[in-house]
Amino acid sequence: MHRAHRLEKYLGTGARIYLKREDVLPTGSFKLNTAIAQAYYAAEEGRTTLVTETGAGQWGMSVALAAKMFGLRAEIFMVRCSLEQKPYRRHYMELLGAKVRPSPSTHTAIGRKILGENPDHPGSLGTAISDAIEHALGNPSAAYLAGSGMPHVYLHQTLLGLEIAQQLKTTHGEDLGVDGRGDHLIACSGGGSNLCGLIGPHLRAKADGADLRFLAAESTAAPRLTQGVYAYGRTDLGGYTPEVLGYTMGESFIPPPNHVGGLRNHHSSALVSLLRRERVLDAVAFDQRTALEAGRLLLQTEGLLLAPEAGHAVAAALDVVAKADAENAEPVIVVLASGSGFLDLQGYNEVLLDA
Amino acid sequence: MHRAHRLEKYLGTGARIYLKREDVLPTGSFKLNTAIAQAYYAAEEGRTTLVTETGAGQWGMSVALAAKMFGLRAEIFMVRCSLEQKPYRRHYMELLGAKVRPSPSTHTAIGRKILGENPDHPGSLGTAISDAIEHALGNPSAAYLAGSGMPHVYLHQTLLGLEIAQQLKTTHGEDLGVDGRGDHLIACSGGGSNLCGLIGPHLRAKADGADLRFLAAESTAAPRLTQGVYAYGRTDLGGYTPEVLGYTMGESFIPPPNHVGGLRNHHSSALVSLLRRERVLDAVAFDQRTALEAGRLLLQTEGLLLAPEAGHAVAAALDVVAKADAENAEPVIVVLASGSGFLDLQGYNEVLLDA
Repeated sequence: MHRAHRLEKYLGTGARIYLKREDVLPTGSFKLNTAIAQAYYAAEEGRTTLVTETGAGQWGMSVALAAKMFGLRAEIFMVRCSLEQKPYRRHYMELLGAKVRPSPSTHTAIGRKILGENPDHPGSLGTAISDAIEHALGNPSAAYLAGSGMPHVYLHQTLLGLEIAQQLKTTHGEDLGVDGRGDHLIACSGGGSNLCGLIGPHLRAKADGADLRFLAAESTAAPRLTQGVYAYGRTDLGGYTPEVLGYTMGESFIPPPNHVGGLRNHHSSALVSLLRRERVLDAVAFDQRTALEAGRLLLQTEGLLLAPEAGHAVAAALDVVAKADAENAEPVIVVLASGSGFLDLQGYNEVLLDA
Repeated sequence: MHRAHRLEKYLGTGARIYLKREDVLPTGSFKLNTAIAQAYYAAEEGRTTLVTETGAGQWGMSVALAAKMFGLRAEIFMVRCSLEQKPYRRHYMELLGAKVRPSPSTHTAIGRKILGENPDHPGSLGTAISDAIEHALGNPSAAYLAGSGMPHVYLHQTLLGLEIAQQLKTTHGEDLGVDGRGDHLIACSGGGSNLCGLIGPHLRAKADGADLRFLAAESTAAPRLTQGVYAYGRTDLGGYTPEVLGYTMGESFIPPPNHVGGLRNHHSSALVSLLRRERVLDAVAFDQRTALEAGRLLLQTEGLLLAPEAGHAVAAALDVVAKADAENAEPVIVVLASGSGFLDLQGYNEVLLDA
């Protein structure tokens, strides 16, 4: 937990802004928390290969490393437009010996079908999930790993929420949810695992009356929680995943190929959607320029460069601070710094510097 | 301090290998330690602009951030071939508002002179130092910052050596220099500041008989300590720096444009050279493939991706471990993880994957 003193001073706020720094993990993102756990169980089951999809590449990097730690092979389908935008992430996976393929992939029947209908399909998490599941189904020694959206992933990531409570208490002397203060827990939301991991351990306290607000920051590139419809649907395009009830842009939605690969899912997970439906969770959407400008402000004040996805959470925090200041509230605001932006500098440059 | 248990297990060694992790600093390298101190003093003196040179870009990134922290402007001359190889580092500096120019630069008289003689000059720290000093001399409100090679820089970096002693003791229960064990402190050596910062606080103990060995890992691209001559010379090409006695490749030496920008100086600093001359310090040289392969091994075992410069120190550690194992010695080996490799993935890829 990093207290953003310099950002607070720049904003002139009485709020105390904390960053839960997962960007310092070896792969540069929080995804490693669940990748290690899932790779461990796959190895225990005698699987020899891990198969998965990846959007921005952070999940793929984490699976590549976790596979190597347990002596497993990794095969990763990466959303094509992300792969082209973020070649460094591919290099990283390949240095670890992982096999990386673009999605939609000519390697699978579903990939060939999608490309047959649209040869220029930029790929999406929906295409990549289908590619990965089909490929894994064809190989009994392979385990398919889910990076987000599933309850076991959320469970692994609850260490985020558990750690913030402990670290706020022991290092900073802060209690969360003090009456009348309106403390905030903020995370970006794609598959929902960093968000659910952050707020999960605090749901009970909120139900019991603690003054806690939970906020999901999504991308206007796929504004499911703020503009989607609540309906049954699948998270993939190939029909391999079960139908779940959630906020969705529809299965035919193709998100624009921008720099927030992790937030471009067309269908929200059941749990995140239910929390939103029940008004336990608020949601806001930002375009990538706003998110990257928030990221640049954090760099220029705190010296920390975060991934564009995390920039959405920072942008949300800036709005929360402005509102709190207008109300003379002085809440604790915890922002999940879900990943490092060192491999996203090209995106920052294209959006902020060349414009 | 990170104990490399998995690397030790992979090597089957009885040595205890520790990494002093400076790669987790906000700019991804140890350079920030002195950049903050120098920017502070420049601001105290009323300077408004920091001017410097940078090779691989780590020093430039640190100056860009330190300048922003103290409300100063930053103007940075970056070795042209490094700038072309590492565009992300330029993006980072520019996000912080720094002005980045390639060296040799058309902006200075010395740069124009060098380009007049060799329009294809790839640049070197020698050209960049000249560019930066000439530019700073023409601006009374500017302070020229040295990234390495100078006593005040070494002084700031001694926190590296002070911290390892404390952290080894308090976290790992290790004393350094135990008789008969042959403990090693290893760092790469370009300008010499990470090396001198690491070993500086331990020179007295070694002089007093502690069983400590100091090892500099340099690049075969500029093997001054292992193959240079001991002579007076300048660290820059323009004659702006004082002549110092040190191991040198000669002022006309142009290093090949490889991926270890931080180790391509043609002239070693006086202090590093004297320590080498007096046999206080050993030195070894590695080509970049060997260094990057050592870096890949560290990634595949420990999950840590280091800069190519730090890969030279890892390569040196592997040789030290092999020798210790052959002698049934079980030393403590401290390797300075001087920087992160996330912005060097293109270099890793070009050398290791496309070959």
